[in-house]
Amino acid sequence: MKTGGTEDFIITVTVKEECPSGPPVHGASEEYLLRVSLSEAVINAQTVWGALRAMETLSQLVFYDQKSQEYQIRTVEIFDKPRFPVRGIMIDSSRHFLSVNVIKRQLEIMSMNKLNVLHWHLVDSESFPYTSVKFPELHGVGAYSPRHVYSREDIADIIAFARLRGIRVIPEFDLPGHTSSWKGRKGFLTECFDEKGEETFLPNLVDPMNEANFDFISEFLEEVTETFPDQFLHLGGDEVSDYIVECWVRNKKIRKFMEEKGFGNDTVLLENYFFEKLYAIVEKLKLKRKPIFWQEVFDNNIPNPNSVIHIWKGNTHEEIYEQVKNITSQNFPVIVSACWYLNYIKYGADWRDEIKGTAPSNSRYYYCDPTNFNGTDTQKNLVLGGIAAIWGELVDNTNIEARLWPRASAAAERLWSPAEKTQKAEDAWPRMHELRCRLISRGYRIQPNNNPDYCPFEFDEPPASKSEL
Amino acid sequence: MKTGGTEDFIITVTVKEECPSGPPVHGASEEYLLRVSLSEAVINAQTVWGALRAMETLSQLVFYDQKSQEYQIRTVEIFDKPRFPVRGIMIDSSRHFLSVNVIKRQLEIMSMNKLNVLHWHLVDSESFPYTSVKFPELHGVGAYSPRHVYSREDIADIIAFARLRGIRVIPEFDLPGHTSSWKGRKGFLTECFDEKGEETFLPNLVDPMNEANFDFISEFLEEVTETFPDQFLHLGGDEVSDYIVECWVRNKKIRKFMEEKGFGNDTVLLENYFFEKLYAIVEKLKLKRKPIFWQEVFDNNIPNPNSVIHIWKGNTHEEIYEQVKNITSQNFPVIVSACWYLNYIKYGADWRDEIKGTAPSNSRYYYCDPTNFNGTDTQKNLVLGGIAAIWGELVDNTNIEARLWPRASAAAERLWSPAEKTQKAEDAWPRMHELRCRLISRGYRIQPNNNPDYCPFEFDEPPASKSEL
Repeated sequence: MKTGGTEDFIITVTVKEECPSGPPVHGASEEYLLRVSLSEAVINAQTVWGALRAMETLSQLVFYDQKSQEYQIRTVEIFDKPRFPVRGIMIDSSRHFLSVNVIKRQLEIMSMNKLNVLHWHLVDSESFPYTSVKFPELHGVGAYSPRHVYSREDIADIIAFARLRGIRVIPEFDLPGHTSSWKGRKGFLTECFDEKGEETFLPNLVDPMNEANFDFISEFLEEVTETFPDQFLHLGGDEVSDYIVECWVRNKKIRKFMEEKGFGNDTVLLENYFFEKLYAIVEKLKLKRKPIFWQEVFDNNIPNPNSVIHIWKGNTHEEIYEQVKNITSQNFPVIVSACWYLNYIKYGADWRDEIKGTAPSNSRYYYCDPTNFNGTDTQKNLVLGGIAAIWGELVDNTNIEARLWPRASAAAERLWSPAEKTQKAEDAWPRMHELRCRLISRGYRIQPNNNPDYCPFEFDEPPASKSEL
Repeated sequence: MKTGGTEDFIITVTVKEECPSGPPVHGASEEYLLRVSLSEAVINAQTVWGALRAMETLSQLVFYDQKSQEYQIRTVEIFDKPRFPVRGIMIDSSRHFLSVNVIKRQLEIMSMNKLNVLHWHLVDSESFPYTSVKFPELHGVGAYSPRHVYSREDIADIIAFARLRGIRVIPEFDLPGHTSSWKGRKGFLTECFDEKGEETFLPNLVDPMNEANFDFISEFLEEVTETFPDQFLHLGGDEVSDYIVECWVRNKKIRKFMEEKGFGNDTVLLENYFFEKLYAIVEKLKLKRKPIFWQEVFDNNIPNPNSVIHIWKGNTHEEIYEQVKNITSQNFPVIVSACWYLNYIKYGADWRDEIKGTAPSNSRYYYCDPTNFNGTDTQKNLVLGGIAAIWGELVDNTNIEARLWPRASAAAERLWSPAEKTQKAEDAWPRMHELRCRLISRGYRIQPNNNPDYCPFEFDEPPASKSEL
């Protein structure tokens, strides 16, 4: 790195707190002070996470000067800290399998965007790639193939790789719906029926009558908490009502069970019954966890003490803000994903522009600000942040990277930087362009995010030489 | 390759015609007979191109058997030939630069889809990456940077690489519009004016008054024909009317020139004047070429003897078919791209499903059949084929591959296989899925084209190890 002279460039890093052995805890300081001259950089941070963010900023102050064809550095003094404690990406390894390598690549790019949460939607109806030690029948039956699993070592590897980049890994095990792939566990799913009363499709809902299921969930979650060190544990809870008619209303045994319990015909009471037992399990976990649930758990008035509510609904920014307002008014902390459903693609610069399409989620990702509602300071403080989601129906190793980036960078800037400094996409565009080119130089596939442009050094990839079929 | 036994597997290839030194000529036979047993394959073809197609088919008969975990081969006897002589992909290296490597990767995948034409939209308003020997000021001024050019060796390399895969390379130099990037050539562009009469934007239209421009075009095209051996030469001609008001109507010198020539206020006559001179140049080229023009040249009633008309307009299949009918009724051969504007992305399986969006081009790529109009056999024989286009506004090295494939495979099957055997996308889906997995195994990024699925061996890519900025 040339810095105008031929002397060494000295970087001095001072961190107040000792480096923790685990990943960042929720709310851990990421603030830093960074002073850069032509001869040295001085970093002061409370935590090692803050120092990491400062190092990333420092690296981004280095630029390639087209005229001199040399690397140079911008001299600055910065005090910087994130606006929200939760700034994440949600990946879905069930609809399509994502390799450890490709997940690591996303973690690398996340850290370059100062994101700090990987929400890992590990398991869904389609496949069960999580390998359980206690219940190997789960991935044994539920994985796409024996190659489409994350071994215990893979999971530990991803968590460690994320930690070194200041990123927490929050696993999600979605219950009680979206559970077809748990089919390896006998008796876990309810029988579901079509209108004729024949069992015609794969059950996708846990059987709440079977008391053994709660013992199983308890044991399973004990293993999960031993596997994933993060304080948060995502337990899903979304779209249960999609399966209730088929799997509960049309199921004679369930109806009888509801009568015995005094629920009558009210399936919401049965849903409550399930969640109350699930809460009790979470409360008793040896390693304490804060549960996160998708918003239906709130929407359906299911008692959910001590939970974080994860917002995914809303077709416009205004509808999303209304959800945030409503849920925080009931004193629940929230995480917002509805602004950033990045799996929905539309032609154009959707990070910035209004683009209509069939997809339910709004575009203009840059402009979504989850605190942009009329509410008290208390309510606004309950907004923990946001998680950009890339659901896996049409996403796998081949396209996740270019599809995520740089669109997720729009969310990353929204969640890190002060609102008053991030009002206009046209001001963000030169930053987005420079970041795209910088990350391309680092070897990542960051796709164009605007009209025609070019980078000093473009991404490249040789023809495939593999001749085997 | 295990074939059930331990013996050698013998492949016998017989080709009638001698292998030509150049790329395939238009209409060259690609038919082949292929017989495969467990011990041998026999290929008979008229040309080496047919033998290449047969070898690709043979390779696709090899499959990985999940049960035995061995590669096996399907035994068949196939007589096969393409439905249309022109089956291509159009790439745009002007809006975003595409590297030689990445173009080669697309050529590799094209040959695996039995496509035989690379339509290379080399130059457009944004940049001029073609390196001219005679006029080095063109790329010297017009390229994004000295790194964003195709050297003479690069171009020869791409043509040779394509030839070995049975692919022709048709270059496009779009005239007289879309020419901003030719700015290195003084006097080539007209001055363009805003409503106030001030020159406020980059000219994007050739100056037809300057007689020297036609000498220049003539010399330039002589070089182009010496560079690109294909019999076809694409000369653009699209969207001229977008610039006529600013660059011709508001330009006093042009208006005076029109008066002198007796054109009055009729800019179409001036456009005709330009094209007549261009046709004369093409007629006189030392190496004879068949010109291709985008459809406006036909739409604007510009006399265009001996030309192929390239159809890009139409929002629905029906509108596109109407264009084909209309143009072939005037005895012009046509190539259709309007069905397959693959740069327009929409969420979902757009190769198969109707998906609404802001983009002007229809989805349901698989179902577009350019001969699906009421017309004579003569008219239908004038349909040379189709070219799937991936314009470069939002496409570069990072995303072209996953964005093109497998969506372009839908067009490839439409253009190769008989209509009666390709009626339903649901019948094509298993083939599309198998092809996707096969090409992933070969190292290409073929993205999901349906709902959740998986491949025996997924695409993978290690974290980027490059630490330099």
